[in-house]
This record gives sequence, C-alpha cells and structure tokens, in this order.
Amino acid sequence: MQTSQAFTPPNRLLLGPGPSDAAPSVLTALSNPLLGHLDPAFIGMMEEIKSMLRQVFQTENEMTFPVSGTGSAGMEFCFVNLIEPGDDVVVCINGVFGMRMADLATRCGANVIKVEAPWGEIIRPEQVKEAVAGKSPKLIALVHAETSTGALTPAEEISKIAHDAGALMLLDTVTSLGGCEVDIDGWGIDAVYSGTQKCLSCPPGLAPVSLSPKALKIANNRETKVQSWYLDVNLLSGYWGTERVYHHTAPISMNYALHESLRLVLEEGLQTRWARHKANHEKLVAGLKKLGLGIASQEGHQLWQLNAVTVPEETDEAQVRKRLLEEYQIEVGAGLGPMKGKIWRVGLMGESSKTENVDRYLDAMTQILAH
Amino acid sequence: MQTSQAFTPPNRLLLGPGPSDAAPSVLTALSNPLLGHLDPAFIGMMEEIKSMLRQVFQTENEMTFPVSGTGSAGMEFCFVNLIEPGDDVVVCINGVFGMRMADLATRCGANVIKVEAPWGEIIRPEQVKEAVAGKSPKLIALVHAETSTGALTPAEEISKIAHDAGALMLLDTVTSLGGCEVDIDGWGIDAVYSGTQKCLSCPPGLAPVSLSPKALKIANNRETKVQSWYLDVNLLSGYWGTERVYHHTAPISMNYALHESLRLVLEEGLQTRWARHKANHEKLVAGLKKLGLGIASQEGHQLWQLNAVTVPEETDEAQVRKRLLEEYQIEVGAGLGPMKGKIWRVGLMGESSKTENVDRYLDAMTQILAH
Repeated sequence: MQTSQAFTPPNRLLLGPGPSDAAPSVLTALSNPLLGHLDPAFIGMMEEIKSMLRQVFQTENEMTFPVSGTGSAGMEFCFVNLIEPGDDVVVCINGVFGMRMADLATRCGANVIKVEAPWGEIIRPEQVKEAVAGKSPKLIALVHAETSTGALTPAEEISKIAHDAGALMLLDTVTSLGGCEVDIDGWGIDAVYSGTQKCLSCPPGLAPVSLSPKALKIANNRETKVQSWYLDVNLLSGYWGTERVYHHTAPISMNYALHESLRLVLEEGLQTRWARHKANHEKLVAGLKKLGLGIASQEGHQLWQLNAVTVPEETDEAQVRKRLLEEYQIEVGAGLGPMKGKIWRVGLMGESSKTENVDRYLDAMTQILAH
Repeated sequence: MQTSQAFTPPNRLLLGPGPSDAAPSVLTALSNPLLGHLDPAFIGMMEEIKSMLRQVFQTENEMTFPVSGTGSAGMEFCFVNLIEPGDDVVVCINGVFGMRMADLATRCGANVIKVEAPWGEIIRPEQVKEAVAGKSPKLIALVHAETSTGALTPAEEISKIAHDAGALMLLDTVTSLGGCEVDIDGWGIDAVYSGTQKCLSCPPGLAPVSLSPKALKIANNRETKVQSWYLDVNLLSGYWGTERVYHHTAPISMNYALHESLRLVLEEGLQTRWARHKANHEKLVAGLKKLGLGIASQEGHQLWQLNAVTVPEETDEAQVRKRLLEEYQIEVGAGLGPMKGKIWRVGLMGESSKTENVDRYLDAMTQILAH
C-alpha cells in the first residue's frame, strides 16, 4: 500500500473562469457533520435551498432544485428531459458552451438548427427570427453569459421569438446567475441551468436548475423514456418533491455549502450584488487601459464577471499566466478555441469580485509586463 | 427576499444504509480553500486519488477515477459507455439496485435478460450459466452487496461465466468497497462503480469507477455516440488522463474529501478494515440475538456493513426508527420494496463501524423494545 500524504492546497486567489473563491462561512458549512439524506433536518434544509434558489433565479417555478452534478450535468438535465428523437432544436452558438449544447442535443436525437455568431460577439435576435421562420422547433437554446468569450447575449427578445414560434426557451446561466440580472419568469424562460462555482461562490458539484410548468408538463408526457436515469426529472421530482421517494443519495455536504452560499447572496441582495460586479469590472477595465490592455468581447455586451483580456502582440500568454500563478498565487484562465493565446479570462465572480482583488491583479500584471 | 437562517445540522450517529459518518479529518479536508480544477496542485492530487483508488479496488486499470456524481451516476457511467442499442445484457436482480441496472440498461437500448433471485438471497452461478446458455450477451451485470437486502453475492464465479460467454463483467461495489474484499483484477471484473458515502466514509457526491483495458477499448470503438455527454468516457479520459483537456469542472472540495478518505482506508490497511467490519457485524448479531432479533438475509451471505435486522411481529417498524432518531440521535434505514416494514437496515460502514456504536445501538434498542 502506498498512502499519499495529507493534501494541503496552496492559497490561491481565484480570478479564473471558475471556481471562484468561496466565502469562509461556506467552507465552514462544508465541514459540518453529515446527515442522512432522508433525515427530516436535511429535508427541511432542502426546502430552504429550493426557496432561496427560486429567489435568485427570480422564478416561481415549483420545479427548482440543484442537480447532483456540476453545471454540465445541469445542461444535460435540461436536454434529456425536454428533447425526444426527431425534435427540431435551435441552438445558438457563439462559444464553447453553445457548441456543447449542440453536441448534447444531437446525443438526444435532435435535429439541430445552428444559429452562429463569431466568438466574442452576441447572438442577434434577427438571426434567431430568421432561423425559425417557417419552422416549428421544440426548443431554442441560448447561452446567456459565454464563459469562453466574455459576451453577454440579452435573452428576453430571443425568448419572445421562441414563444412566438411555439418553442420552449432554454437558457444557460452558469456564469450569469448571481453576477448580473437573471429574470427567469420576467423573461419567460422555460428551462434554465446554472453552476454553483461561479457567481454563487459555492464549490463546484451542484447544478441549480428550474423548469417552468409548461416545460415540466412536456417532460412528464414524453413518448419515449428519458435516456438518463440519473437525470430523469420524472424520478427526481419524487425525491425533491413532497413525496421524498428515494432516488439517489444527495451530496449532503455540497448542499450545506449551497445553502450557505444562497443565504449570502440574498443577504447582500441581488441588485447590490450585480452593482458590485459591475463596479469591479469597470475598475478592472480602467486599470487595464492604463496598461494598454483591452477587452476582446463585443463592446456594450461585455460580462462584468468574466473579462476576456486581450494579450498584447509578442507577449507569451501562457508564460504570464504561469507567473501570475507561481509568483503571485493568482489564477486566471486561458482562451479556448479560436481565442486560445489571444485572451486571458479574468473572472471577478462572487467572492472574488472585490476591489482589492482587482488591485492585486493589476499590480501583478504591471510588474510582469514590465519584466 | 427571504433569507434562511444559517443551517446547523443535529449531531446524528449514522447507522443507516449511507451516508456513514465521516472522519473528522475528512470533514476538515472539505473546508480547505478552493483551487482551480486545472491548477497543477489539484492535478497532482487527482493523480494521487487515482493511484489510491486503484489500490482500494485492487486493480491496475489505468482508467480508474471518480465520476463527478453520486453512486448512481457511476452506474450510469458504466452502462452508457459499454452498451449500444440492440446489445444483449444479462442483469442479475435480487434487490433494488439490480432493478435499477435493468432500468438503466433498457434506457441504453439493451435487450435485458433478467436473472432473478428472491430479495435477501444471493444470485447463484448456475442461474447465470443457464441464462447465457446458447447466447452471446455483451455484458453481465451483478450487484456485489445489495444495500436493499444485506446480501453479498460472490462475484468471482459469475465473472468466469461471463468471460466464458465472451461477455464483459460489470460489478456494483457501492456498499462493498472498503468494507469487505473487493478484488477487481483478481476476479476479472471489466467495469466497476462504487459510491463514496458507504464504507469509504467520505460524504456522498462522487462515484469511483474503473474500466479494464478491454472495456475501455469497447467504449472507445463504439458505432454510436455515448448518449450522455457528461459521462462519456471518451471525453472524460482527456480530462482525467495525461492531456488535461477541459471537460467539466471537477467538484474540488469533494475530491479533497475523497483524497483524505482513501488515505485513511490505506493507512488502516484493507485486510484490517475488512476484519473490523466483520468483528463489529458479529458483535451486532450476537447482541441482536439476545434481543430476540435476527438477520433477514441469506445465512452465510450476510453483509458485515449492512444488516437487515428483522422487525418483530406486532412491532411498529417506523415508530422504532423514529424513536431511535429523535430520542437517541441514531439513524437506521427502512426496508424497501417487499422488505418494507419487515426489516431495519442497520449500517456499520467505515467510520460508523465501531464497537461503541454497536453498543449504543443495542442499548437504545433494548430500551425502545422494552417500552
């Protein structure tokens, strides 16, 4: 037997595309003693999580709960429950996560109609209108905040187009939830998923989701069985609903952490939290400008919580990232796909969105770029 | 906004079917500050987890890692990767989890050939031999330790039958791993999954899995795409392998906890740990006998870590469980399916398998049954 030494993580400042830093009280909540997943005390806490999630999503959807997997499991939850083989699905693609949705829809047997925009730009409503003209898609899927490019596509108008076409509207809010406005009921979103490790500042491992009554009805009245047992909402609703039928064992500790994270979000207040993200983004952009650096994503649609910082010509992108991590204990992310080597992804999400963190990053960059 | 109060769980002794109690150092590991999931320090820890998991599974399979979901996600991982529509699959059913495997195989498009035994009994090798006679199934699936009934079906002989029939052998070790002998390579198991919250005494949220090179080759050379994006081993191997291609964000904190749990398992030593589970089971059985209570599962094949304790006639099963929880802070589980109301499921798993816990449970039962 070869036993490893106990692991002690280095103390990083997490300014990448996620996870963001977790609040001390969230980490403390994680270390609480375990409960059984059918314990009345745990079930009471599950109810509070559902109620707080509804407030953060701004929805009254009964079917609002955390899927027991990471954000991508939330994406898969939405697609496998709503799509049946042969369905037409419009997928908007302007980055990695749009591509992933198209892949997933295909695995569900959908005919995927792609609406594409260059990476860094947003999806324009007219594009979607054109794509659905004369068609009756079952669902239109859009990434609200593209974590791979830093662009925020407004969802409300596209959602209207979806409903006019008789389609369900699905929104990826992995990086937007808790960092900027997300208004599920106001925008008429039928299915939404998010992750815990971005602007909610909870460790990764759960995927908050919500289905409108209309979406739920469709999932409840499918012709074919949901291809995933683990993510079948018809089974999960028995577990997260009032019956408490055993399905799987919920990740107890992660739910403790989510409960505490949501509490902190609501204690701060949604508007205040969004304003904080905006202010720190603006501070960052102003500081970057002094360094001769800009934001690569489309002007007027740049995310506050995830900044696509342009890499100056003749600068070794990976080397700067490495020095930030090794010399300054600051994590930022690399670009993906066509943006690889061209941007750094600098996250200011949740707990990580602080003025002192912006200063620390700008100071480090000033020193690194000087030498 | 309605913010909930911070949640403080009551202090239970977890003697149910899982989760079991976590060791203090595992809970402490959970509260370590987060790292990015591509941080070299985290990647180094992932390698140690893989290496320790191989030792606990007793396998040299390269493809050994924790799926980012609970035990049921591990089950789904094995089925979706190995099964294609139209495959013949033999599923052994002697409890809830065999039934679940049959359901899952069906969702993958398999033709399921069922081999059934009464709940509480084991699957006999002759039954499997009979079922495969003249057939060429792709896979034979067996639950090693049936958590719903407390029966341990020996896997080695059935695995030989699988290989003689040219089939892959799949084993569910959710409740067995870390509590009694599990010898993946010695028994010739091609695909195995487990959970963290049973005899590994780590909180629920991850599913250790392992695929033999033969199983992996089959998954790598499918005719159809894996129906799950989240669980596709062809994508996951890029993330957990040497390339570190971004797939999803691993649950950082849960992996800290698993690292520490595996360390404790190996520090104790597998044989010592199994012997401890056996000794505490025997102590429990002897104590139950004095109370006039027995074990409902098949003589000679009773699990050490999960005891199906018979409910005496005219005793209100649910009332006893409720009193144990409320008056003694002890959680035990209810029976499921045909065993509902007839047994209590008393887990002595991992950290919960202690002589003082057996005493505490027996004392409580003595008092409750007297009044």
